[in-house]
Amino acid sequence: MNSPALPDRLVITYDYHGVDPAKIADLIRVEQTIEFPLELASPWIADAVVGKIEEITTIDLMNHRIIISYNPDVVGGELTALLNVLWGNASLFPGLRVVGLAIPESITSLFKGPRFGVTGLRELFGAKDRPLLCTALKPMGSDSKTLAAMASTIALAGFDMIKDDHSLANQPWSRWRERVRAVSDAVSSANEKTGGNCLYAPSLNLPADQIFDAAHSAKALGAGALLVLPGITGFDSMRALAADDELALPIQGHPAFLGSLVASKDGGISHGVLFGTLMRLAGADISIFPNFGGRFSFTQEQCREIQVAAAAPLHGLHPIWLAPAGGMSIEGIPEMLEFYGRDLALLIGGALHRGDLSANAVRMSALVRAL
Amino acid sequence: MNSPALPDRLVITYDYHGVDPAKIADLIRVEQTIEFPLELASPWIADAVVGKIEEITTIDLMNHRIIISYNPDVVGGELTALLNVLWGNASLFPGLRVVGLAIPESITSLFKGPRFGVTGLRELFGAKDRPLLCTALKPMGSDSKTLAAMASTIALAGFDMIKDDHSLANQPWSRWRERVRAVSDAVSSANEKTGGNCLYAPSLNLPADQIFDAAHSAKALGAGALLVLPGITGFDSMRALAADDELALPIQGHPAFLGSLVASKDGGISHGVLFGTLMRLAGADISIFPNFGGRFSFTQEQCREIQVAAAAPLHGLHPIWLAPAGGMSIEGIPEMLEFYGRDLALLIGGALHRGDLSANAVRMSALVRAL
Repeated sequence: MNSPALPDRLVITYDYHGVDPAKIADLIRVEQTIEFPLELASPWIADAVVGKIEEITTIDLMNHRIIISYNPDVVGGELTALLNVLWGNASLFPGLRVVGLAIPESITSLFKGPRFGVTGLRELFGAKDRPLLCTALKPMGSDSKTLAAMASTIALAGFDMIKDDHSLANQPWSRWRERVRAVSDAVSSANEKTGGNCLYAPSLNLPADQIFDAAHSAKALGAGALLVLPGITGFDSMRALAADDELALPIQGHPAFLGSLVASKDGGISHGVLFGTLMRLAGADISIFPNFGGRFSFTQEQCREIQVAAAAPLHGLHPIWLAPAGGMSIEGIPEMLEFYGRDLALLIGGALHRGDLSANAVRMSALVRAL
Repeated sequence: MNSPALPDRLVITYDYHGVDPAKIADLIRVEQTIEFPLELASPWIADAVVGKIEEITTIDLMNHRIIISYNPDVVGGELTALLNVLWGNASLFPGLRVVGLAIPESITSLFKGPRFGVTGLRELFGAKDRPLLCTALKPMGSDSKTLAAMASTIALAGFDMIKDDHSLANQPWSRWRERVRAVSDAVSSANEKTGGNCLYAPSLNLPADQIFDAAHSAKALGAGALLVLPGITGFDSMRALAADDELALPIQGHPAFLGSLVASKDGGISHGVLFGTLMRLAGADISIFPNFGGRFSFTQEQCREIQVAAAAPLHGLHPIWLAPAGGMSIEGIPEMLEFYGRDLALLIGGALHRGDLSANAVRMSALVRAL
């Protein structure tokens, strides 16, 4: 679902599991803004700064839907403040879940959003209407040379994007800089042979004081894309990387550490808002999330919700790619296409390694390119 | 609880709600490391890189405790990678909760941890064995001049620390830089009058590409401490700020956006690990969390767990202050002291404004200083 759009208001829809929804609605609109006894606030602050209850719908004794709108000025133009209004202290209220978010143009216009999105990556890869071919370098413990050879094999097979496994950082078996150099070189050599444009996305799950320099180093070393883990390094690190015109690289957003936000039906943030709207607002060109039927637990309905939010009108911000992942197989591609359509980044990892990597990658590439 | 310590292993204890704990334990140890079919990994990787199941205890049909240990090398010396091993993709498994964490010295020795901790702030404030006197500037919507006047009143009353309300960022009513300058000046003037050492902690819930410069600007403008929201800007932003020897400022860690991690008893991370161990490892000198009996929902037992983790031996990292907050009152101080003891940062916000702010602040200061 989405929140109703109201003229120049940030509109958040909450599901509340509990009694007395009017009381909790009053708590939320104050907590998420002035965090101060309402009766002590000036009339101007109580009117202009505190959120407004737009609607309370009671579904049954214990289940209610609450819509509250906020003055966009409480966000002050920054994603960090928007996240705080959305879910800062409200995250500490039991029984409360964000299920809808409508962001006014006065806020979205301050964000660059996804630099490429669906159309931009189609152009970049010359992929007119087919899904993208994506995989990950693994397993951790492999040295950089081995990972580079793997990347070469996959790039030669005609894949579009090869990311670091999201767990790869600065482990002693393959240090970040050494890996980025070796894999970038391998992918570049493969591209020369194929005439293709395979891009390597190194992981930027790195220390906060190194992440921006690392992104620029990655580009200088030849990496053509970036993998960001906003659950660990913060959504705003992704926003800043996406907005950097000197980088101008496609970004994959990974769901690590974000699971607790969506896991409970009585808490957190809905799948669509988190993996659709927020990933997109923060500049991911590709949103990775656990597919239904994989080794995690998302349902078809939750995956559909992500798809809807990834493509819904958002004041001109580009729609983004979906990368439903987690134990996907080549055999499962037709089912994924049927469910998601073609704006799909097919991210198949471990399964490519069952048998011969090269043969599997060639087979998957041929299958997808023939679509 | 804590995980058992094993020689040079990172030990994570999980509670699992579901059937077949051996199967989920196998999934976790692979998912959190190589994320790759185990049978395809080399014998060396399967042994040295994949986690090891140390113990599975079945409590009843649906409840089990699983202990898995990891090679510290999978962390590669970085908090961002540690958070990923702890809860990256595991956050996406339903029914799983981290309830214990034992970090070996080979990892903690790479972290500075809290620069001041309990002892350091006692020295800084000349607070031999009393709790600290803390409050927040509010409500949002007030201009910088009003907030500075408020800070002056509170500093003159003898408070130790005055933080921005965590929601204050760059709203038009009080821009960050203007506010930091005005409040720092006001607190500095008050300190000259009182001979005291009240410190102002501006909020650093700011864009990722500005946060470190902002921290240095804050110090240059006269701020004596920092407020960090690791749930939004990332735990590693706090780690990096705490480790910065040019800043060398006390840090308050705020729980905004972290609630979904602790809210479900069948998911997330335990209160002790999150608000105790992780806040401390990431360098918070003061961990702010919702007190029992306030407007949020923590229990006495959960608060006790935080207290234990904040003070437990951690290879020489300083124990840290507790700031149980959220609707606290001056009248409630004796009960808080009885429960928590004296290593307590008394963070009382809105209640100070009921009636005369100055009189309330003076009363609270006198009460606490007489302890």
